[in-house]
Amino acid sequence: MNTADLGLPVDVPSTALFTDHYELTMLQAALQASTAERRSVFEVFTRRLPEGRRYGVVAGTGRVLDAVENFRFDADVLRFLRERRIVDEKTLQWLAGYRFSGDVWGYPEGEVYFPGSPIMRVEGSFAECVLLETVILSILNHDSAIAAAASRMASAAGDRPLIEMGARRTHELAAVAASRAAYVGGFATTSDLAAGFRYDIPTVGTSAHAFTLLHDHERDAFRAQVDSLGRGTTLLVDTYDVAEAVRLAVEVAGPELGAVRIDSGDLLLVAHRVRQQLDELGAHDTRIIVTSDLDEYAIASLAAAPVDGYGVGTQLVTGSGHPTASMVYKLVARAGSEDPKAPLVPVAKKSSGGKTSIGGRKWAARRLDAHGVAEAEVIGTGPVPAELADRQLLVELVRGGQVLGREPLDAVRDRHAAARAGLPLSATQLSRGEPVLPTEYV
Amino acid sequence: MNTADLGLPVDVPSTALFTDHYELTMLQAALQASTAERRSVFEVFTRRLPEGRRYGVVAGTGRVLDAVENFRFDADVLRFLRERRIVDEKTLQWLAGYRFSGDVWGYPEGEVYFPGSPIMRVEGSFAECVLLETVILSILNHDSAIAAAASRMASAAGDRPLIEMGARRTHELAAVAASRAAYVGGFATTSDLAAGFRYDIPTVGTSAHAFTLLHDHERDAFRAQVDSLGRGTTLLVDTYDVAEAVRLAVEVAGPELGAVRIDSGDLLLVAHRVRQQLDELGAHDTRIIVTSDLDEYAIASLAAAPVDGYGVGTQLVTGSGHPTASMVYKLVARAGSEDPKAPLVPVAKKSSGGKTSIGGRKWAARRLDAHGVAEAEVIGTGPVPAELADRQLLVELVRGGQVLGREPLDAVRDRHAAARAGLPLSATQLSRGEPVLPTEYV
Repeated sequence: MNTADLGLPVDVPSTALFTDHYELTMLQAALQASTAERRSVFEVFTRRLPEGRRYGVVAGTGRVLDAVENFRFDADVLRFLRERRIVDEKTLQWLAGYRFSGDVWGYPEGEVYFPGSPIMRVEGSFAECVLLETVILSILNHDSAIAAAASRMASAAGDRPLIEMGARRTHELAAVAASRAAYVGGFATTSDLAAGFRYDIPTVGTSAHAFTLLHDHERDAFRAQVDSLGRGTTLLVDTYDVAEAVRLAVEVAGPELGAVRIDSGDLLLVAHRVRQQLDELGAHDTRIIVTSDLDEYAIASLAAAPVDGYGVGTQLVTGSGHPTASMVYKLVARAGSEDPKAPLVPVAKKSSGGKTSIGGRKWAARRLDAHGVAEAEVIGTGPVPAELADRQLLVELVRGGQVLGREPLDAVRDRHAAARAGLPLSATQLSRGEPVLPTEYV
Repeated sequence: MNTADLGLPVDVPSTALFTDHYELTMLQAALQASTAERRSVFEVFTRRLPEGRRYGVVAGTGRVLDAVENFRFDADVLRFLRERRIVDEKTLQWLAGYRFSGDVWGYPEGEVYFPGSPIMRVEGSFAECVLLETVILSILNHDSAIAAAASRMASAAGDRPLIEMGARRTHELAAVAASRAAYVGGFATTSDLAAGFRYDIPTVGTSAHAFTLLHDHERDAFRAQVDSLGRGTTLLVDTYDVAEAVRLAVEVAGPELGAVRIDSGDLLLVAHRVRQQLDELGAHDTRIIVTSDLDEYAIASLAAAPVDGYGVGTQLVTGSGHPTASMVYKLVARAGSEDPKAPLVPVAKKSSGGKTSIGGRKWAARRLDAHGVAEAEVIGTGPVPAELADRQLLVELVRGGQVLGREPLDAVRDRHAAARAGLPLSATQLSRGEPVLPTEYV
């Protein structure tokens, strides 16, 4: 695969080491025991949503497809595994020829999910599937956590645009994935140039306090910015005195000034004052952007304020209190021999200490009520009831190792908006509560 | 620079797009206003520690040095910036020749820090320094958050080794940096092969529940694992019934069995029972590893349990409740003209809405009491008092664009252990409290 498709500025020659050591030792032991080729089904699901959340958002699926396609053990990687004696020679030879040749089905990216939802299903030999556990979970757990927070913020913001600006608060590459997940969840733009480069998300930004402080007077800074970026720019007005800065901003840029940004203080109060001042200065179309430590609750609290857009950083990229989803990747069925025709046997951990799960390859469907609103997440292992046949959630993503499920990010974003709109109204309540749909097992 | 030094499996041809859009627009405006070359000093610091934490841990410095050295605008990046009209042609030409040529000083990696500590100081032209804001903060905010959690866990674990196994709970590349930060904070090993490859951290792992479930009987799974990995392996004993599994494990491997792993249930209770059973079976040297949703509090609560090692995942990679440090990158001084000999003028945001800071280029020193224990973090902008001259914290990391400050990760890990040991005893209390050292400004 062309690594450019995987995205500069980060060229990932292989995803094969985004893997826990134990996956390779299990492979080695299974190869020796002649169980490695047993046909197996692994499923990704979560036992619970983060406390108080009403729904989850599937994000990262497209990145998983890239990672699976690019999961190879090249010479450098094999040398490392050999020198470290992580696995034996027989296993290294097996790894050298690794290409995932199985099937993947899953909830389409942007779809919502609930406890137990089989978000992704990976089927093939035990050997080829067990190796994908960590990279699949890393991507889905991170991206879904961010998308869920983004979705709540987007609900709270209503029609006002949200700017993702959290790159500085998270790992530099997690930031790129976070921008992508935020876009899926409903954000409009990002400050992160790498996300613009990699995923074609619109990028925005004008200036920081440092730019004002660089100049001898605030007026000089505003003048420099307007001269270079035009009257449509956004001037940051809270470096010294907000009222004086707003006055200067309109004096320098005229009433055509695009926007002012407020990055500190009591945003509700300040926004009202700034709006009044702008209107008095004739700058009726100058927008007000606020950007100070916002989360979905702060956004909601500004619903009645004269605010035209929100920039969100820390709370977005840290999942607003829940920086990871708790998805797991579990073997739910496997054959009793390496014969490719051997029937699958459901399996599940049964220890009394919690973490139990339900064996068997699952389907999932979302049942609607008489008004077309979702009323239950139905999950089963047997035949799909006829009335749910056209409400099934899993779609084919990879067939025989060939990726089928790639799609534009805008399609994913639209799907999420539609999926959220199909939930009961209480889904978008910010207050803590139970999952908005019950999970029913049949 | 050889990109291999930056680390497969992730080749980063350039770090220049790990940058917020506004850094480039500020550059453009400053170039036009003839203020871009004003000599400037930016500092990285935090206004507060996460609530209740006693100290912070500087981590990521080594990664920052790589990122600064590799911050270039290559043809692909320039084409992107041009096509998106992010900056004008004059700015693109300036960027094409970008190499950081300034100086960086900072707290050495592994050192502890407190509110206001000038963790890093970047000095050069405004233009060359302003571009580094996001990438520096991304790295330090992420890595320091993980290292701080790791340090608390390492204190709680005492002499028992900690295994980092959180890759599946965070972005796949954040995971690699998290392993590194965990090692700095005191972890012994990681499950993440990419971290082993990139940073030479020892990797460990044996098997998951899936391996037991793959086989028709638990005995078959244990036999397969021991046959392949030897008697010194770690058998996972909580797939079905723990007592039965422990019995089987010793039957299969003999009393030479390396360890058993318990991944669910009441770990305190189960560890005691398993220890007793192992001893009764003559497996006195078989260790007990526990790995279920641990954090520093759970680790501390197992101090009296017969546990020989801890595997920590989610809570480590999410910073145990604080997934990001709140470091900022602020212009604290700049010249009044582009003349390289123009004196520096201290600057600071002054708005009443909070987020104020202290202008001027700072030094920092840690004052010791009569017993050699740290008693204050002293920060100043004037001359360093004679009695603190040999207690200064900032070291030279980059001089005129040349990286000086690279060091082996083990040296960083040792420095952290020594720095933590030099704090008052209350530093390692897990209970919430104030920073263990006061910050004094002189």
